[in-house]
Parts: sequence; C-alpha cells; structure tokens
Amino acid sequence: MKSDANRRDGWVVGIDAGGTRTRAVLADARDGRVRGEGEAGPGNALTVPGPELAAHLAEAVASAVPAAMRGQVLAVAAGFAGAARAPEEERGRVRARAALGAALSRLGIRTGAVEVHSDVEAAFAGAPGRPADGLALVAGTGVVAARIVGRVPAATSGGDGWLLGDDGGGFWIGREATRAALRAVDGRGGPTVLTATVGRALGVAADTLPPAGGGCWAPARRAAYRAGLLPAVLDRPPVRLADLVPLVLEAAADNDLVARGILREAVAHLALTVHALRPRPGELLVVTGGLTAPDGPLLTPLAARLAGLTIVPVADGRAGAVALARLLTGHRPADTP
Amino acid sequence: MKSDANRRDGWVVGIDAGGTRTRAVLADARDGRVRGEGEAGPGNALTVPGPELAAHLAEAVASAVPAAMRGQVLAVAAGFAGAARAPEEERGRVRARAALGAALSRLGIRTGAVEVHSDVEAAFAGAPGRPADGLALVAGTGVVAARIVGRVPAATSGGDGWLLGDDGGGFWIGREATRAALRAVDGRGGPTVLTATVGRALGVAADTLPPAGGGCWAPARRAAYRAGLLPAVLDRPPVRLADLVPLVLEAAADNDLVARGILREAVAHLALTVHALRPRPGELLVVTGGLTAPDGPLLTPLAARLAGLTIVPVADGRAGAVALARLLTGHRPADTP
Repeated sequence: MKSDANRRDGWVVGIDAGGTRTRAVLADARDGRVRGEGEAGPGNALTVPGPELAAHLAEAVASAVPAAMRGQVLAVAAGFAGAARAPEEERGRVRARAALGAALSRLGIRTGAVEVHSDVEAAFAGAPGRPADGLALVAGTGVVAARIVGRVPAATSGGDGWLLGDDGGGFWIGREATRAALRAVDGRGGPTVLTATVGRALGVAADTLPPAGGGCWAPARRAAYRAGLLPAVLDRPPVRLADLVPLVLEAAADNDLVARGILREAVAHLALTVHALRPRPGELLVVTGGLTAPDGPLLTPLAARLAGLTIVPVADGRAGAVALARLLTGHRPADTP
Repeated sequence: MKSDANRRDGWVVGIDAGGTRTRAVLADARDGRVRGEGEAGPGNALTVPGPELAAHLAEAVASAVPAAMRGQVLAVAAGFAGAARAPEEERGRVRARAALGAALSRLGIRTGAVEVHSDVEAAFAGAPGRPADGLALVAGTGVVAARIVGRVPAATSGGDGWLLGDDGGGFWIGREATRAALRAVDGRGGPTVLTATVGRALGVAADTLPPAGGGCWAPARRAAYRAGLLPAVLDRPPVRLADLVPLVLEAAADNDLVARGILREAVAHLALTVHALRPRPGELLVVTGGLTAPDGPLLTPLAARLAGLTIVPVADGRAGAVALARLLTGHRPADTP
C-alpha cells in the first residue's frame, strides 16, 4: 500500500462522498495545495447502488484530475458516508472500496495507495493542525460521531441509518416536519405553518392546503391534502425528506413553535450522540455536515449545548481526505499549506 | 350494485386484508352463519405489490369458497389495511379494488356487488349489535382510527404508514426495540435485555452478543454486533420489524425498564390517535388488530387509559366484512346469527 511512500513529486486525490454529493479534490502531494476540483451525485456507500456509486466517483474524480495528470496520482483517500469504520467486513466499506477501485481503474489511475475511510474520519483529519486525537461529528442527512485515537476511530456513536436512527439529522428533521404536517391535519398535533409549506413542497394541490387567511380547513379538504401528501412522500427515496430542512429553518425563524420544537429536539439528539462518547472537559470536537459546518444552521445552538468542548467546524471532508492521502505518500501532517 | 338486493338465498364473502395476512370467510347470506374460511399472505393495499395482493386474495377466497359454490356468491365485502377511506381517488383503495376484481374474476365469482372498505370500517361493522355510529381503532402492524357516522367513516386519525407515522403499532414497537438495542451498544441509551433478544432474533453472531453473565462487553464485540445487526434489518422489508413485538412483551414481563417504557409510550400514542377524534364520554370504541384484539397485549393498558369510553374489542375484521357483504344483499344489520 505504501510503495510510493518515498516519492513526493506528484498528486494526491481526496474524496468526500456524502449523502447529497460526491466531491473530489486534486492536490499537490508536497504541499497539499489544491489544483483541481470535481463534483457529482450522492456517494453514501450504503444507500447508493454500486454501479451508480462508481459512476459518481468516476465523474467527480474525472472533473478534478485532467486526463494528462492521472498517471502521476500517488495516492487516493476517500471519506464515505455509510462506511462506518471497523470491523473490516462491514458492508459500506466493502462496497465503497469496490466502487472506488472500479472508478479509478476506469480513469486509468493505477496507484496502489488507495484508502477508504468513513466520513467522520475524513472530517476529523481536516481540522487545522491535523490533530491525532479527539472527537468528530458529522450532522448532514445522517448523523454519526466518533472518538478518534491516533487518527483512527476507536468508538462510534449513531450512524445507524435513517430507518433506525440518525436522530437529529436532515432526514430526521424532514420526517418530523412531515409528521407535524400530518398531525395538524387530523388533530393529533397543533397547527403549524409546516402543513402549508411542506404540502406545497411535496406538490399537493393548492386548493387542498389550509386556507391562507386562517379560516376553516374543511374535513374533505383535509382528507384530500392527506391523500396528496402520502403518495408524494412514498414515491421518493425516504432520504429525500432531508430536502425539507430549509422549510423547518424558515418556519422556526418565523417563530413557528412546532418548527422550533423540532430543531430544539434535533440539537438535543446531536448532543446526545456526542455525549455517548464521554467527552472530557475542553476536548476537541470537529463538526461538519450540512447542519453543523461553519455556516450550518445548528452549529450555534449545538455549540451552546456542548459549551464545555472545543468545537471546530470544518466545511466538509475534502481537506481531511487530502490530508489522509498525503499521509499515504509519506508526508507528515505538519507539512500543510 | 344492488341488483341482487332482493335475493336472499346464497352466499356472501367477507375479507379481512391486513398487514400480516389476508383472511376470507364464506357465510350464509340469510343468517350470516360461517360456512368456510381461508387464509393467505399479507393484504395491505398500499405496501403489497398489485399482482401479489391479487394472488393472496385469490388464495384466501379459493380456500374459503369451494369451486361448486362460487356461482352462488351474492356479494363480497373486504376491509383492507392501507385503504384509508375517502377521497375515492386515494391509491390504496384503487389498488385494493383492482386486485380484488382480478382475484374474483380468476375464481369465477361474478357478482357485481363488491365493495372495498378500510380495515377500520370493517372492524367497526363487526361489533355486536352492528352499531351505526362510534369510534374504531385498528392497532396491528400499523395504527389507524376513525369516527364512524351512519356506518361510514367521517374522520380518520393516524394511518400514515410506517415511514411517517403508525406510532404505537407493531412496526413502531419493533423499530423502537431495535433502536434501544443499538443505543445500548454505543452508550446513547441504558442497558436492556432487548440487545440480546433482538440481536438473536435478527441472527447476529452469538459471540458478538453481550456476555450472558453481565461481564464486560468489549468494544470490538460491540462493533461486530452492530455490523451484524444493521444489514440484517436493512435486508428485510421495514415492516418486518413488527415481528419483534413478542420480544418486547417478554422483556417487559421480565421487568426490563426499557421494554416497559416502549410499551407505555405505544399505549400513549394509541390513546392520542383516538383522542384526536374527540371522543364523547361513554362513546363506543371498537378496537382490533394484533395489539388490541380481545387477547391483545395492549388492550388492558389502553382501556385503562381511555376509561371514559365503552371499549369493545373484536377479534379481527372478518365478522364486520361479512356484515357489510350482507348489507349489500339487502339484509339489515339486525339479522345476525
């Protein structure tokens, strides 16, 4: 795996394969400077079918690495959503490795130095100063946290996928928004602007939405709303519910109590996911993912809730994947741009 | 539809098509006495693919109705899970009607008096005395409640399917059990015997289960448990999680606090589903489904929680479907066996 360890002239590729998109970066192996970038569709190793995963990887890497430079790629490292670390036989990692191998060989990138990591490892590796130990949280469509010891995950928390967990992540927030809309329809829950905004986003007929002026929402109209909403959700892949997150943020900003409750509960779930790793006071917590990246909507409330920790948000896993690829070529973490 | 309304000699078929199985009953049109029964696989109108649904219906009806009697079937009524009532264009009902039509024509049953109802309507129609008004709750794999006025549902509550709702039903309980097992693995939740029993039921390797004596459950073993559990769940249809309900009941009977908490919360969800229909004091509530049928494990706690209502458990939707079929032939509700 480290046959090129002493050769420093050339390029490395770092890949961040997340639930929403796959991003690849070409960087100089010596100083880590970025020389090219590419992007393609979703890269979750568990939920994206193998051939599609390989196609997205190939597309992102092809855009990042001009054909003429593909022969000088020394190492490739990728962080995948859905590739929770050890044990080795875990299916996400196996699928990620197969898809990445297929993509690289299709592009004529023949280095033997190729490593597959989880998204949470890649996020951690991207923190300034390239720390070796601490905690990391990825809160995007899904949610996973890990304790990293010597750059390797020693324990994980969450990452159970949308059916069983990922509480507090984008899927979870979108599902809660849809549930709140349906509860408002039949009276199990209180009124919320989400009924209208979620309904509109899912394409239910305008004349079945709650009356804009707040008048009586007739039973037949409620039933028609529900009859439009349910199939619209069932016709898409479940994780697409994460697309509704902006509507919840908007409603919360407008003081909708139901939306605020959903976000408050999401933050509590994220905090619990970190808390399960038994953080020590002041310990480093690298956070990323759509919800907790530097501009992420839940970064501030999460930081308030985990005030005892040193929270460092990173944009995504790209910088970390490049750092991990450079480690494969023998460059020590300190050689950063 | 009622061309046979005055002809009382002959047979009717009642069908109860639920998330777990499809059951058909052949009964005498005059007195409702049962003359044959048949059973086949799942009959949820939303989740079972059309051809399979038709095959299950045909199999159940074929077993209930000997070939020689199929020419004398005057009416067929069926209550389907996943066929929430109005509006008419709702997909479950449309699919149920198509599948039932195909099944009957395959068997040579040619009556034009065929009606599709929701499971909750059929359950209500099966209550002793054949009431016309009141409430009904079906709590099986899924959960739906309805207010019935003049034998027709006037409002429903719940019935949103496993992805968005059905809180407190069999799927929900099984999913909560699996979530509790996973939370115990990574420390987000407390210890529970469900970790062992759910793991065993889902086929995770015995040497990854928590040590029987209560000793240290090593991190590598925990990770291997998780790596075995997640694919086992993802490889089956999600609703199969309902198969885990008996494990939760068993654990609760053994005073497992986590299991007891799941069941307590399930009962609260069922009560809320009924409560949304604004029951009047003393009002009739017909209950059925695996959880709240006469021997159902949640009947007693639910009845305690809804003590102000007149709760009547019925075994399933078969008697109600027969009653609805007899109504189609012109028999009044009072003509019961």
